[in-house]
Amino acid sequence: MNAPAWNLRDRQRRERLARAADALGARLQGRLVATDAAVPLLEAVLQPGDRVCLEGNNQKQADFLARSLTQVDPARVHDLHMVQSVLALPEHLDVFETGIAKRLDFSFSGPQGARLAKLVSTGGIEIGAIHTYLELFARYFVDLTPKVALVAAHAADRHGNLYTGPNTEDTPAIVEATAFSGGLVIAQVNEVVDTLPRIDIPADWVDFVIPAPKPNLIEPLFTRDPAQISEIQVLMAMMAIKGIYAEYGVQRLNHGIGFDTAAIELLLPTYGEQLGLKGKICKHWALNPHPALIPAIEAGWVESVHSFGSELGMEDYIRARSDVFFTGADGSLRSNRAFCQAAGHYACDLFIGSTLQMDLQGNSSTATLGRITGFGGAPNMGADARGRRHASPAWLKAGEEARRGRAGAAGTPRGQKLVVQMVETFREHMQPAFVETLDAWTLQQQAGMALPPIMIYGEDVTHVLTEEGIANLLLCRTDEEREQAIRGVAGYTAVGLARDARVVENLRDRGVIQRPADLGIDPRDATRNLLAARSMRDLVRASGGLYAPPKRFRNW
Amino acid sequence: MNAPAWNLRDRQRRERLARAADALGARLQGRLVATDAAVPLLEAVLQPGDRVCLEGNNQKQADFLARSLTQVDPARVHDLHMVQSVLALPEHLDVFETGIAKRLDFSFSGPQGARLAKLVSTGGIEIGAIHTYLELFARYFVDLTPKVALVAAHAADRHGNLYTGPNTEDTPAIVEATAFSGGLVIAQVNEVVDTLPRIDIPADWVDFVIPAPKPNLIEPLFTRDPAQISEIQVLMAMMAIKGIYAEYGVQRLNHGIGFDTAAIELLLPTYGEQLGLKGKICKHWALNPHPALIPAIEAGWVESVHSFGSELGMEDYIRARSDVFFTGADGSLRSNRAFCQAAGHYACDLFIGSTLQMDLQGNSSTATLGRITGFGGAPNMGADARGRRHASPAWLKAGEEARRGRAGAAGTPRGQKLVVQMVETFREHMQPAFVETLDAWTLQQQAGMALPPIMIYGEDVTHVLTEEGIANLLLCRTDEEREQAIRGVAGYTAVGLARDARVVENLRDRGVIQRPADLGIDPRDATRNLLAARSMRDLVRASGGLYAPPKRFRNW
Repeated sequence: MNAPAWNLRDRQRRERLARAADALGARLQGRLVATDAAVPLLEAVLQPGDRVCLEGNNQKQADFLARSLTQVDPARVHDLHMVQSVLALPEHLDVFETGIAKRLDFSFSGPQGARLAKLVSTGGIEIGAIHTYLELFARYFVDLTPKVALVAAHAADRHGNLYTGPNTEDTPAIVEATAFSGGLVIAQVNEVVDTLPRIDIPADWVDFVIPAPKPNLIEPLFTRDPAQISEIQVLMAMMAIKGIYAEYGVQRLNHGIGFDTAAIELLLPTYGEQLGLKGKICKHWALNPHPALIPAIEAGWVESVHSFGSELGMEDYIRARSDVFFTGADGSLRSNRAFCQAAGHYACDLFIGSTLQMDLQGNSSTATLGRITGFGGAPNMGADARGRRHASPAWLKAGEEARRGRAGAAGTPRGQKLVVQMVETFREHMQPAFVETLDAWTLQQQAGMALPPIMIYGEDVTHVLTEEGIANLLLCRTDEEREQAIRGVAGYTAVGLARDARVVENLRDRGVIQRPADLGIDPRDATRNLLAARSMRDLVRASGGLYAPPKRFRNW
Repeated sequence: MNAPAWNLRDRQRRERLARAADALGARLQGRLVATDAAVPLLEAVLQPGDRVCLEGNNQKQADFLARSLTQVDPARVHDLHMVQSVLALPEHLDVFETGIAKRLDFSFSGPQGARLAKLVSTGGIEIGAIHTYLELFARYFVDLTPKVALVAAHAADRHGNLYTGPNTEDTPAIVEATAFSGGLVIAQVNEVVDTLPRIDIPADWVDFVIPAPKPNLIEPLFTRDPAQISEIQVLMAMMAIKGIYAEYGVQRLNHGIGFDTAAIELLLPTYGEQLGLKGKICKHWALNPHPALIPAIEAGWVESVHSFGSELGMEDYIRARSDVFFTGADGSLRSNRAFCQAAGHYACDLFIGSTLQMDLQGNSSTATLGRITGFGGAPNMGADARGRRHASPAWLKAGEEARRGRAGAAGTPRGQKLVVQMVETFREHMQPAFVETLDAWTLQQQAGMALPPIMIYGEDVTHVLTEEGIANLLLCRTDEEREQAIRGVAGYTAVGLARDARVVENLRDRGVIQRPADLGIDPRDATRNLLAARSMRDLVRASGGLYAPPKRFRNW
């Protein structure tokens, strides 16, 4: 009788390590692998059908390992199940075209969205699901545990300890799930050094370290040139600050990426200061180190910023402002996407972001036809955190507004997160942001999804903010009211024009809809002069020369 | 002109380190502090008003540091703001009586709940808020960042690297938030060794290591003696398995602590097997290593278990079943409360737990008069995860049931988490579990809370399971229906007796209420013989002698 095997994972792990040692010979020294041995290493440790986590992050990319993976022999390594938060590089899809990989679970595919949709439609790829980041990380510990993780760090020492630098990002979550489930962790590093500035990942958790031929790719995704902020965006930012942030006393928040929210950041030390709001709003942030936040930080608005990742060019500024950012004893940022997403979910009172489309129920989505992209962190931060139990004035007020006059389970008092969708009524190419039906419904059919890819559900949205005004959906009591509230700020879109003017005026009387004039805002004051920085150069100046924008953002 | 100070935290950190070096002299060697220097160390590094995170965990306690903190001079160290997930030890409250501490933010106070309520009523303590665990950890990175963390690990090496052993629990979250915000981390350890079995926390993140005079306290909170499981609990477990787990195809789940859920675990290899459910339900768990799960693991039901913490006596069993548990290369468990709570929130389809009281809206709470206890992980796991975007059959079916026939925002298709409250209609001393009004409302008044302390809101509960049957609240369409559905399973409690029998029969016809007979369950089959283990000894036998229960659970 065979004893049941309960330590198969450990045995397979040892076998894989032995295969690597055999294949690499002298090109493996301790945990250190020679750069030219990347492909043989992958061929030695990977088996068909393995679940592989490739660190395609929001910003940092394990690009050398991604490229090496495209070069393995598909006869030996095939049908991999890739789990990764972001599909950013062509290599991330190349592996599916060659049969090296077959199945995919992910969060965001940004620039690869169109190619991904094509691959899905031709059967070249099976999509498991599209997740929000924290949800994907959570599944790493339940039913999407990686067998092999391919990650990126800035440097390693000779023992295999890793220094991620400011872009720690997803690495701790990936490595923990893999290293403690009998998996193998392979890290590409920019350099191997004698002594690391600090240790972000202990060598214990790492099996192989391989110096990459060039530094790993990092995208400056969160840099917005103030020169491109329009006066409409200034107006909307004024409404956000006066009509929402001040109204609810929002002290802890997250901003989505974009010029809309960059405008808010740049108005704090000017317009916010005029309104006497310093110290009353926007003190604690779950946010990457946005350069647009520099003027507010310098003006003393910001007590703390915890970050998902870093931002290129902000390194020296962060080091010189360590009271504000989470930094190591070495002075550089320690970011952590998992903890920052938890912070965005549970410790923030407000999430504000943009969308491409919103329907009459308030459902919004950035999914558009012919592209499968996912939503990154928005679903997690743009959902009411119903497990939250600590109170704050902003959260209590939102919850009270939503429940006022209600009975039964829906009337039981609780707080609510403020979830604001900030959007101009028309986006580029005069596409209306407000629609009767989201493209998501067609996309669901095209891609055979179980549900339409909705980024933020109408049930979770509390405010819609356009250049025409703010619609407070918390105060709506029926589907019809909600619909007219949305139409009432939808401007000259077809949806906006089809409003019932009488109902909309009634909603305005009740404060459900607020126009700039209702907020005491004169649109003529909404000029670019209100921006605390009007150019990249202004941001550099505001930072005392500490901020060093990437070349593409400099014209001097 | 003074340059603005932006690195105050770093400067204060260095000053505190220097004070410690001065105060301790030869009793500080590198990061190693002599055991008898604990109090002087704390007096040297702590300042009045500091925010201090004391590792009072669900299980593991930094008890030596807790005791040392009670011994500091209140003239030097006072008005601390304590942040800790669990108040378990008398010392955790002693510091408030002496004025050493003043303010408290926490998650759970279990055995100290009555004393805590008294201290609050006499003004001896200011409560910030009561959180669910992940929410508290999230705030460590936003507005409750610790200045000093007092944590517990099993061992350290001479550099200060920490080995937590199986009870990693909260330590990584606490240490990361503190070490990367200019704070100080002090770890008590059971021993200092030359080489650690593995590194759980890098020395880089730790400032002081202090050997405790005896091993840190760990409570075996998750051990339930099968001998104490009643036949009513067997009946309820049969209903849970057949009426909910099988009905929805629940593969990923979390169980609360208690005999009710232990009964389910012990019925899987017997009753579950009879129903042909092996491989169809209960494959992936977010769960501590419950001894009651041993028979199901041995019978091949369980693919994976990720754990919040460990459980005393399960060490050798876990090591021998490393395919199932998350273990390090050293073979011992790596638990992690933050990641496991994220898993419970986002990667599980079902949470099932018990409560002390439920009202007619379905709101439930374990809060009772004269005690302030908090709810630990239940609010996080017992809330619908509205940020979730990946589909599973269980989640889709629950969402479809909740939205069937609905229009508008509430009718937009989405999935829903199954949140089951499993409770006998009368608890000990014949207290009814169903009440018109929760004690939470009175407690809110008594303690001056912003909201009543509700553990799980009626809006999030999907099923109520009693010995009388299952009420599926997903199918209720009005407050009245929900009320009658709850009354309809509330047995001989006053709430149950006041049911409208006609409406309840109608709900039964519609499948909203299901009796055992409706599920094809004969209550006469619900005997203890169905339990895969009927005693602690059976559990040990099922484990092949690998499980070693703590002495208090052994009568042989």
